[in-house]
Amino acid sequence: MLKSFAKAAKPTKEDIEERLEREQAKLAANQMRIREAKVPVMVIFEGWGAAGKGGVLSKVIKDMDPRFFSVATLDDKPTEEERMHPFLWRYMVEIPQEGQFKFFDTCWMEEVTHDLASGLLDKHAYNLRIDSINMIERQLVDNGYLVMKFFFHLSKAEQRERLDALSADENTRWRVDEDDYRENDEYDECLQVYDRYLRDTNRSSAPWYIIDSKSRKWATLQVLEFLNMGIEVAIHNRGVAAPLRQNVFPLTKMPPLSSIPLDKTMEDDEYRAELKVLRARLQELHNVVYRKRIPVIIAYEGWDAAGKGGNIKRITSALDPRGYRVIPIASPEPHEKARHYLWRFWQHVPKAGHIVIFDRTWYGRVMVERIEGFCSVNDWMRAYNEINEFENELVEAGTVLLKFWVQIDSDTQLARFTDRQNTPEKQWKITDEDWRNREKWDLYETAVNEMLQRTSTTFAPWHVLESVDKRYARIKAMRIVVDAIEKACERA
Amino acid sequence: MLKSFAKAAKPTKEDIEERLEREQAKLAANQMRIREAKVPVMVIFEGWGAAGKGGVLSKVIKDMDPRFFSVATLDDKPTEEERMHPFLWRYMVEIPQEGQFKFFDTCWMEEVTHDLASGLLDKHAYNLRIDSINMIERQLVDNGYLVMKFFFHLSKAEQRERLDALSADENTRWRVDEDDYRENDEYDECLQVYDRYLRDTNRSSAPWYIIDSKSRKWATLQVLEFLNMGIEVAIHNRGVAAPLRQNVFPLTKMPPLSSIPLDKTMEDDEYRAELKVLRARLQELHNVVYRKRIPVIIAYEGWDAAGKGGNIKRITSALDPRGYRVIPIASPEPHEKARHYLWRFWQHVPKAGHIVIFDRTWYGRVMVERIEGFCSVNDWMRAYNEINEFENELVEAGTVLLKFWVQIDSDTQLARFTDRQNTPEKQWKITDEDWRNREKWDLYETAVNEMLQRTSTTFAPWHVLESVDKRYARIKAMRIVVDAIEKACERA
Repeated sequence: MLKSFAKAAKPTKEDIEERLEREQAKLAANQMRIREAKVPVMVIFEGWGAAGKGGVLSKVIKDMDPRFFSVATLDDKPTEEERMHPFLWRYMVEIPQEGQFKFFDTCWMEEVTHDLASGLLDKHAYNLRIDSINMIERQLVDNGYLVMKFFFHLSKAEQRERLDALSADENTRWRVDEDDYRENDEYDECLQVYDRYLRDTNRSSAPWYIIDSKSRKWATLQVLEFLNMGIEVAIHNRGVAAPLRQNVFPLTKMPPLSSIPLDKTMEDDEYRAELKVLRARLQELHNVVYRKRIPVIIAYEGWDAAGKGGNIKRITSALDPRGYRVIPIASPEPHEKARHYLWRFWQHVPKAGHIVIFDRTWYGRVMVERIEGFCSVNDWMRAYNEINEFENELVEAGTVLLKFWVQIDSDTQLARFTDRQNTPEKQWKITDEDWRNREKWDLYETAVNEMLQRTSTTFAPWHVLESVDKRYARIKAMRIVVDAIEKACERA
Repeated sequence: MLKSFAKAAKPTKEDIEERLEREQAKLAANQMRIREAKVPVMVIFEGWGAAGKGGVLSKVIKDMDPRFFSVATLDDKPTEEERMHPFLWRYMVEIPQEGQFKFFDTCWMEEVTHDLASGLLDKHAYNLRIDSINMIERQLVDNGYLVMKFFFHLSKAEQRERLDALSADENTRWRVDEDDYRENDEYDECLQVYDRYLRDTNRSSAPWYIIDSKSRKWATLQVLEFLNMGIEVAIHNRGVAAPLRQNVFPLTKMPPLSSIPLDKTMEDDEYRAELKVLRARLQELHNVVYRKRIPVIIAYEGWDAAGKGGNIKRITSALDPRGYRVIPIASPEPHEKARHYLWRFWQHVPKAGHIVIFDRTWYGRVMVERIEGFCSVNDWMRAYNEINEFENELVEAGTVLLKFWVQIDSDTQLARFTDRQNTPEKQWKITDEDWRNREKWDLYETAVNEMLQRTSTTFAPWHVLESVDKRYARIKAMRIVVDAIEKACERA
């Protein structure tokens, strides 16, 4: 793309001034339309060193209302802390909420092209990164985001000239470093890498715009014109249904819930003895997890009153509190609802060596949100694949990901609800909403069965915990956790 | 994609029967909705030999109204005639019109994967094909098409079993050929090629659906379910504006029309002498064009009464009538309007060795259609890039493509209009519409300037013919034609 890129004729100075004024006014107006239309806008600036990204950015935001935009300045090299998370994490925690602009002064392109050029990524690893980026850009757009990607282009001579000018002035010298000069020395090699990346990620959902960056004003004008155009198309297209994609991840076979026998029990003696052994083993393993820097996610879903809380407690009782967190998931807050539905879970993705336990999860999308109509049919149907992709990202980054469905039958739930109602110290645990959800048991059962069928991948299978006898369920969960972590520690 | 593809659990026989009935009824209803919504639907079947594409197809169309669908059966190997056209040609002439389904029993995938596997395409040529396919699938979707792509998948053993069963029965033996067995023998190599292709062309605008083809009924059900889902999304998304893409083709600099001096003239003697020489040379060259199998397109645009007709006549007077055609372009007919706007021009793309002269062209999209509002703003703004892509396809296929803008000033037009009005034998040449268009001169001038700026690529630049003196314009055109063809003949 860069190699075949031909600059448009640069307009006259007067023409640029006039159009700049017009486009800046348009952006100020479009910003309000974006706010009203509740579209979240990601604007990504990438390009050659010294191409003037920062300068253009300050011009672009000149007339924007600062309440409705912010800037994420990400270094091309992730920090130690960031490296302990999946590749996409440091970007995903930064995505804007609806009605807001977020400008990324370099994003995933910078990191990936640097890592490829420096040999940190081989061809295979690079291709995996490209897959991740195309996946997440598609997911963002499918979920209503406008993603505008700009590449600031300079010729070798133009870059050299810029660098020399910046170095010559002691006020700007700090903006130039060795890497910039190295990029200029190895311009042709860098061009290859950039060109390949642009080609690999130039998709209809988020195409690239190449900006001739020789003059700052002209570059600003190009960005503004493309941005305004993108906004107008995005506002026109609100409510578009994205095509559903077929699952291409290998699945494990899940039986329907109704066929799972729930008569499994465990005697108290056996339970206590087993618990003791498993707890000791898990305690040991937690150290290894930390030492070997393995991230662990344990995700709980299940019927109300199925015994999730008690089950989680048995796991955490074996863990060092400095090395784990339990994240209870309730209805999303307004600022969470205003972003990609997986964003609030990305926030809690553990860093390497840490354990995060989710008490309810991202599967709310295909259960409560589906049943209560909190999202469109297209949204939850698309979510199976999006969730598989999300979990695949985590697992590819080395995460041990365990998913538990805590299962009871409807009669058991009724008995436990009644018990809660009648026991003063348990009454806080039961609400009107629990009773209302109970009335929708059949709808939930259909949704849960579909969820288990479609998202039990070989890399993140569902485990059903038969929890009419809670002791049985707790021991089963702990065994699965211990086994999985043990295997991961051996591999690591 | 194939390598990681995991079959969904096959439903029970009863379940399949029940769902088949439901989906078939749904398709019958959706067919009417497609008709009403005026969406053109391309359904592409690709896959392993003997995977049962034909059988599934006959089940899918079972309850469809035959007035609203048709089937294109394209051989994996293009005919001699087809090979004399650009790669996409034989497919593009087959695209459906709005409200209609067209089933492609194999499409461009079959041809490209075959040619790659057999070594007919090297890596570079293969990548160009992939670019063409991604481009055209995007263009189709951007212009309102629903493109559903199915790959019929079988394991090596399943395919072998099918082939043997077909060969054993003398009624079906004809359906199996050597190529099918070769594909089975070289299953793993073919899998690599197919997998690569699916990955390379799996875009949001037209994703792949992989069909587990072991059982015909189950395969039919999968196709029907995906197809109905795709239709529902497409109907929901009618009127979506596609993102505009930046031009990445190298452009030549075009001056604004107003700056072009129109005082060029040519004396009659010189004109006659020159014409004679050029005509003789063009006559010779036409033979070489034919012998060396060079396709030639000469495209004329210009003001009414600028002298296009006379200019074309001077060219054709040198040509053997068996080797050229003049295509006058008027407003599109209903069946043309109902398809991608470039379709009617694909019909006339010359085969190798032939010359086609267009009297007005596909540039109507960014002139009359823009000015009269016959398409949306997004449509004509997108068209610059789409046209550059279209012309790039032609030129990459070896076509000599010449584009003439026949230029006069407004006063000259008025004089010629008045002359036509006052001369009985010329009156047929002037209509009320010409006068109406004349009133929009300024609008046209803006549109033409923008068109010249944005579509004068290095591989297909615009040539302005100053035609106040028609003799000058004719000689200039012939010189350009002769030069360009001469050069192409030397290269060929």
